Amino acid sequence: MPQSTLTHLECSLTGQTYEADQVMNLAPNSQRPLLARYDLAEAAKSLTPENLVRRKPGMWRYREVLPVRSDANVIDLGEGSTPLLKAARLGETIGCQNTYIKDESLNPTGSFKARGLGMAVSRAKELGESVLAIPSAGNAAGAMCAYAAAGGLEAHVYMPRDVPHTFKAECQAYGGSVTLVDGLITDCGTKVAEGVQAHGWFDLSTLKEPYRLEGKKTMGYEIAEQFDWTLPDVIIYPTGGGTGLVGMWKAFAEMEEMGLIGSKRPRMVTVQTTGCAPIVRAYDRGERFADEWENAATIADGLRVPKAVGDFLILDAVRASEGTAITVTDEAIMESVGLMASLTGVFPAPESAACLEAQRVLLSQYMIGRDETVVLFNTGTSLKYTHLFG
Amino acid sequence: MPQSTLTHLECSLTGQTYEADQVMNLAPNSQRPLLARYDLAEAAKSLTPENLVRRKPGMWRYREVLPVRSDANVIDLGEGSTPLLKAARLGETIGCQNTYIKDESLNPTGSFKARGLGMAVSRAKELGESVLAIPSAGNAAGAMCAYAAAGGLEAHVYMPRDVPHTFKAECQAYGGSVTLVDGLITDCGTKVAEGVQAHGWFDLSTLKEPYRLEGKKTMGYEIAEQFDWTLPDVIIYPTGGGTGLVGMWKAFAEMEEMGLIGSKRPRMVTVQTTGCAPIVRAYDRGERFADEWENAATIADGLRVPKAVGDFLILDAVRASEGTAITVTDEAIMESVGLMASLTGVFPAPESAACLEAQRVLLSQYMIGRDETVVLFNTGTSLKYTHLFG
Repeated sequence: MPQSTLTHLECSLTGQTYEADQVMNLAPNSQRPLLARYDLAEAAKSLTPENLVRRKPGMWRYREVLPVRSDANVIDLGEGSTPLLKAARLGETIGCQNTYIKDESLNPTGSFKARGLGMAVSRAKELGESVLAIPSAGNAAGAMCAYAAAGGLEAHVYMPRDVPHTFKAECQAYGGSVTLVDGLITDCGTKVAEGVQAHGWFDLSTLKEPYRLEGKKTMGYEIAEQFDWTLPDVIIYPTGGGTGLVGMWKAFAEMEEMGLIGSKRPRMVTVQTTGCAPIVRAYDRGERFADEWENAATIADGLRVPKAVGDFLILDAVRASEGTAITVTDEAIMESVGLMASLTGVFPAPESAACLEAQRVLLSQYMIGRDETVVLFNTGTSLKYTHLFG
Repeated sequence: MPQSTLTHLECSLTGQTYEADQVMNLAPNSQRPLLARYDLAEAAKSLTPENLVRRKPGMWRYREVLPVRSDANVIDLGEGSTPLLKAARLGETIGCQNTYIKDESLNPTGSFKARGLGMAVSRAKELGESVLAIPSAGNAAGAMCAYAAAGGLEAHVYMPRDVPHTFKAECQAYGGSVTLVDGLITDCGTKVAEGVQAHGWFDLSTLKEPYRLEGKKTMGYEIAEQFDWTLPDVIIYPTGGGTGLVGMWKAFAEMEEMGLIGSKRPRMVTVQTTGCAPIVRAYDRGERFADEWENAATIADGLRVPKAVGDFLILDAVRASEGTAITVTDEAIMESVGLMASLTGVFPAPESAACLEAQRVLLSQYMIGRDETVVLFNTGTSLKYTHLFG
């Protein structure tokens, strides 16, 4: 059985290293995200294309480069190995034949959050934590509660008061404790921090512990494996906290170091909405850190993130990849939902429809070539958002 | 590349055979379901455990025993290869350690209907049909519309007027034409039959064409493969139209003929609700055909099927397997939703919570042994039913 080759944690800003088998949130000195590091030379011995062909589907197939050490701590609900669908009819319609959708809605709890939270809850359990807390626009909360239920941990979630009913119902069914907060996800984060102080809960906020990133990065491994160890020309990704984009970028570097892929990288396109675009604004200004966005408002709940602790990691990846950052409007998102659903059979979350709109704009601006291979992310099921549709 | 070994169609009641590559609904003489038959000796040459280990996940991995002949007609949204989860905490709580959940909610459109409709729409396309129609309690409609959208076919769905909003929104997003009917699914079926007469639509009603069954049967192949080519002691299955139960039973026979499994069969338990239990009533009366249930009513929409054209196929399988048929109440279903969700991380559809309640009853009656291996089906996501929860 393959084993984790986790060696240490490293501050993403300063490079300072920390022992891996202790409970950590942000790097103590910089208050920035910690990255998990592995013995990639060791991992490369068994994490080979030949071995992977014979492994079961799911994100745990990349076990050598995942942080959980003991099988007993793996909480597996079937996350990962989501389909990469060639969207033939859509591609023809928008004039970009090689358009693919990575359909993350086929994860447990209906979103890509299952990867990050599945990993983080498993690792928190391994390190002895038993009470977890999270601020969430909805999907992360549902995922955390599901994995906590499966693993026998206690879950406290804080969501904005206007969160769709489905998210509350889901968390409560899993036995999670749900608190609705007047405000945005940043305000929910403040409440979680208070609970951490008062009760010693473990904080699973995006990028505020090292392991959600490790779950999300498996999207990068899968894309490479599904494209037979090559990478597409462009990846268009809806960016709230940015863990997925940063995770894939980390995965590409690990894979190159292990000899699984070459040096080619996709151009990473980060999509936000005109109502909340801190990363796009910082990109346009040439800044590495993004100021908080005031009065954030958009129908795409997952993109209503006014401040991201991993801002510089997102911006570094976008720039290093020669990608771009782009905003779309809520109106364009709603139009794109129907376009994608009716031409692909994938009913996208608003966040994902934003990616399609971004692709159309970038095609029209010749920033994506019509023969290029483009991957759009459907980050979650729209079944949680049907209040938006007639 | 593996090929379909489809040879002919056979009437499930009379055994009369028909040519396979023509459009068929029910068997013309008996008005009963047609079954697809294969050259299993040929199929067995390549459909081996060794070859399967190397094939990609998804229901199309069993291509030799599926009806679609040309790759060009396969409409693949990533259906199949759903997780088989060991429910450790739940098993401990109810006193049945080897309890597993086959989580079909991880299919496209969030339900097991994706298998049957993915197969049937693909095959309908292959046989030249372009306009499809279906009566549905909801999940089948969404699945048909999704596959029709991906494949470029026209979709007409008829659902009871009280169907949850999410189902309508989903079908409409996929570009389907939605008609709400005052009545039950049987009344919707009458409307579809009128459309077939008037407009030449192709009728995709459960078991009224031969190929939905072929998609559903892949659940049986998967369970065998996931249990390393053995079968569990008991399968508990919520029964509306019964296609999945009949399909798995057919799969087991095919697998035995191909030498993939032995003669052991699971005891098949069919679960209905006290408000609509035509199959259980017929089982109790020792009858092979089930009378229509009057005034059907239950919160489990998928079990509100007063009359099933495959009634005798369901009852034959239950009896041959030495299984049983059992009813549960809506109240017990609602309790079981929370029990399953909070102990497993799987938020079950009401239909699936019914399976857990049935398991508890049968354990208490010593009809399931506490050391037996039991598989419960989560047939679809509860995200479509959150109106039922606070």
